[in-house]
Amino acid sequence: MITAIVLIQTEVDQINEVAEAIVKLDGVSEVYSITGDHDLLAMVRVRHHDELAEVIPGRLNKVPGVVHTDTHIAFRTYSRHDLESVFSLGMPD
Amino acid sequence: MITAIVLIQTEVDQINEVAEAIVKLDGVSEVYSITGDHDLLAMVRVRHHDELAEVIPGRLNKVPGVVHTDTHIAFRTYSRHDLESVFSLGMPD
Amino acid sequence: MITAIVLIQTEVDQINEVAEAIVKLDGVSEVYSITGDHDLLAMVRVRHHDELAEVIPGRLNKVPGVVHTDTHIAFRTYSRHDLESVFSLGMPD
Amino acid sequence: MITAIVLIQTEVDQINEVAEAIVKLDGVSEVYSITGDHDLLAMVRVRHHDELAEVIPGRLNKVPGVVHTDTHIAFRTYSRHDLESVFSLGMPD
Amino acid sequence: MITAIVLIQTEVDQINEVAEAIVKLDGVSEVYSITGDHDLLAMVRVRHHDELAEVIPGRLNKVPGVVHTDTHIAFRTYSRHDLESVFSLGMPD
Amino acid sequence: MITAIVLIQTEVDQINEVAEAIVKLDGVSEVYSITGDHDLLAMVRVRHHDELAEVIPGRLNKVPGVVHTDTHIAFRTYSRHDLESVFSLGMPD
Amino acid sequence: MITAIVLIQTEVDQINEVAEAIVKLDGVSEVYSITGDHDLLAMVRVRHHDELAEVIPGRLNKVPGVVHTDTHIAFRTYSRHDLESVFSLGMPD
Amino acid sequence: MITAIVLIQTEVDQINEVAEAIVKLDGVSEVYSITGDHDLLAMVRVRHHDELAEVIPGRLNKVPGVVHTDTHIAFRTYSRHDLESVFSLGMPD
Amino acid sequence: MITAIVLIQTEVDQINEVAEAIVKLDGVSEVYSITGDHDLLAMVRVRHHDELAEVIPGRLNKVPGVVHTDTHIAFRTYSRHDLESVFSLGMPD
Amino acid sequence: MITAIVLIQTEVDQINEVAEAIVKLDGVSEVYSITGDHDLLAMVRVRHHDELAEVIPGRLNKVPGVVHTDTHIAFRTYSRHDLESVFSLGMPD
Repeated sequence: MITAIVLIQTEVDQINEVAEAIVKLDGVSEVYSITGDHDLLAMVRVRHHDELAEVIPGRLNKVPGVVHTDTHIAFRTYSRHDLESVFSLGMPD
Repeated sequence: MITAIVLIQTEVDQINEVAEAIVKLDGVSEVYSITGDHDLLAMVRVRHHDELAEVIPGRLNKVPGVVHTDTHIAFRTYSRHDLESVFSLGMPD
Repeated sequence: MITAIVLIQTEVDQINEVAEAIVKLDGVSEVYSITGDHDLLAMVRVRHHDELAEVIPGRLNKVPGVVHTDTHIAFRTYSRHDLESVFSLGMPD
Repeated sequence: MITAIVLIQTEVDQINEVAEAIVKLDGVSEVYSITGDHDLLAMVRVRHHDELAEVIPGRLNKVPGVVHTDTHIAFRTYSRHDLESVFSLGMPD
Repeated sequence: MITAIVLIQTEVDQINEVAEAIVKLDGVSEVYSITGDHDLLAMVRVRHHDELAEVIPGRLNKVPGVVHTDTHIAFRTYSRHDLESVFSLGMPD
Repeated sequence: MITAIVLIQTEVDQINEVAEAIVKLDGVSEVYSITGDHDLLAMVRVRHHDELAEVIPGRLNKVPGVVHTDTHIAFRTYSRHDLESVFSLGMPD
Repeated sequence: MITAIVLIQTEVDQINEVAEAIVKLDGVSEVYSITGDHDLLAMVRVRHHDELAEVIPGRLNKVPGVVHTDTHIAFRTYSRHDLESVFSLGMPD
Repeated sequence: MITAIVLIQTEVDQINEVAEAIVKLDGVSEVYSITGDHDLLAMVRVRHHDELAEVIPGRLNKVPGVVHTDTHIAFRTYSRHDLESVFSLGMPD
Repeated sequence: MITAIVLIQTEVDQINEVAEAIVKLDGVSEVYSITGDHDLLAMVRVRHHDELAEVIPGRLNKVPGVVHTDTHIAFRTYSRHDLESVFSLGMPD
Repeated sequence: MITAIVLIQTEVDQINEVAEAIVKLDGVSEVYSITGDHDLLAMVRVRHHDELAEVIPGRLNKVPGVVHTDTHIAFRTYSRHDLESVFSLGMPD
């Protein structure tokens, strides 16, 4: 499983609406509206590196109300939880 | 459950070591070593707002090798997964 | 009581008008027009973490003339004053 | 009453200790440890403009563990609370 | 006397026109068109803290052609000149 | 008369001491300790462009406690005061 | 062979389209859509310094959907691969 | 001779056209289209400080296609070349 | 093949030495010393996502003289060259 | 002739000394001490692209007192002066 963290700026008055649209995209496991300079943080979890291009520049960046995205990809995940089994349920094959 | 996202800069040659120390702290559910300007991103998930002060400035900021932290707190969480039940297992009462 | 500090940029010629609109929102205890890069600083004081999402992205960000907001949440409050009793009077139940 | 907001960076592992030292200074009504790029935010409330120089560059900047300060002065305060009477109790004459 | 330094960005082709409008405002003693990232620097000198709000967000920010302002207030003035007597002539009572 | 505005960062606990040393330099008419990211602002007023090099990189930058300087030169001065006669008294011939 | 690395910001929803247009330009050997603050990175490899002006400000900057470019030129190339022979095939004479 | 270095941002697709207009201005000795965050760098060389205001905010900033300028003035020039005699040929008296 | 672009800051006087050490690491296909704010750009090309953690935080960040790294991962590669066959020769299995 | 503009930060109290050392390097035609965030600007003019690596990372970056350099290379030069003949005198063959 490859994890990408996407920091998102939205139109200033559409944070909630954009979050609800993004969380419905395949490959997006969670969206948080957050404090600080960015408005949303989306966790993208996919099986193969190639899917990142489809999910992020291909779909997430095209959601209306998205102004800017800044993606950070996880080199490695450290956790006592079995994230793979939790999140793989919602992933496309 | 309150979620905080902590972006962390570490000594340039200790990314892995710091990640392994942080993931063992109570209240930290996952740590990711990430691309971009910061070195690590830690997900902190606690039951009460008061615990954030203990976990982040109280413990995480004092892990040797941590140079700077920048915390963002989630206003709201959007997910099709039941994050509360997944992550509450590892949380202190 | 949870305290959030919201730094706000407004349209350059509407600082006063936006401040007067924001201070009327439930959960906002004080607004300051300030020197420096931001135009306003609003103190948001609420009883429960969940109210932050309603007050800040839900209402404050939608006040006309608001261009950008940057929220910082207090981990802990240090004061010789009993802020809880002073400010809880204006808070929604 | 003149209000100044001081954003403070501290040594990474001394946030709590520095906050406790700053809140004891005359003229400081509240200190918050906060999320985001800065570590602390101090509210300074004084009767006369001249006192700002004594409180901030004169004393607050010299507290051990303070690395950088960035002060913003309030042009005007908007509040439904009588801040003047609440906070003037702790102010030097 | 309280001194405020206002860094101003103007429309790129209206620097001279904006400077001439700002220097006519009560409370503004000098305006400089300057090198670097900002276009103008205005020195505001007033008798009372309250006047800053009228002069800067109240009037200066509303001069047509002003795009952004960033105000810095002097804690203390160091000079061998008697600035008080020089500049108080042009100040409103 | 040529005017230069010098923004100065000092050691965090030496703002007052550095200001007092800088205001004694020939060519410096005023120093302000200021709010915001920089600690001091010095106004340098000289008769000839060549003197700027002596005053700023030559002397001001070498005052102990100065950490960084950022100079902005005035293209043009707008004022209802006769700044030339006020400030030329303290200038070297 | 002279190598230039061009970081490119595009309209937020046209990353793929702009990449496909840029990779067809003479002198461009590869385009990557990338994580982080910029959207695309283009590798420009030319025989003579003069060609850089034609390829980058002359053509690449004029591709529709390009919002900003930031070019970095290689002083020197270190590689175990014979990049010269690989990439010179696509270069104009 | 006083030298000013002007960093210029232009409309993204008009770099060449703006450079050709700026190099024709009196007082401008050279224009370079450059790599990095800015698009052009203009060298302005004049006899008297007063001419800088005419050349830069007065004329250069008003050239169509100029979006932002950031001027740096030389305190001192170090060179083995006699720049004064080379460049004074093109200067207005 | 997964491509990562690593921007590297080195000790100011060791650019060449650090480049020569980095280009010898498995997974690094090219290093460029570059103009602009960073000193080096390394192209990392690996078969599997997991190798990125070994190559970049695991080895590249620990090369003596490396001060900071900022990694950008390619979502997708656009090229008329068969980069896969060129660069896969030097890759570990 | 290829022109590179090098912005240089020096130790705060060694601007003049570093400028005098840099202007003696082969390939450097002029050095300016400048206002603004950087301390020096060096013009490097060489015959061949390869010489840039020798002059800038190879020699200029190693001058004692240099803290940071940021190089911008000219794509194209616009001038009514014959810069080639003026500056080629000081260039190495």
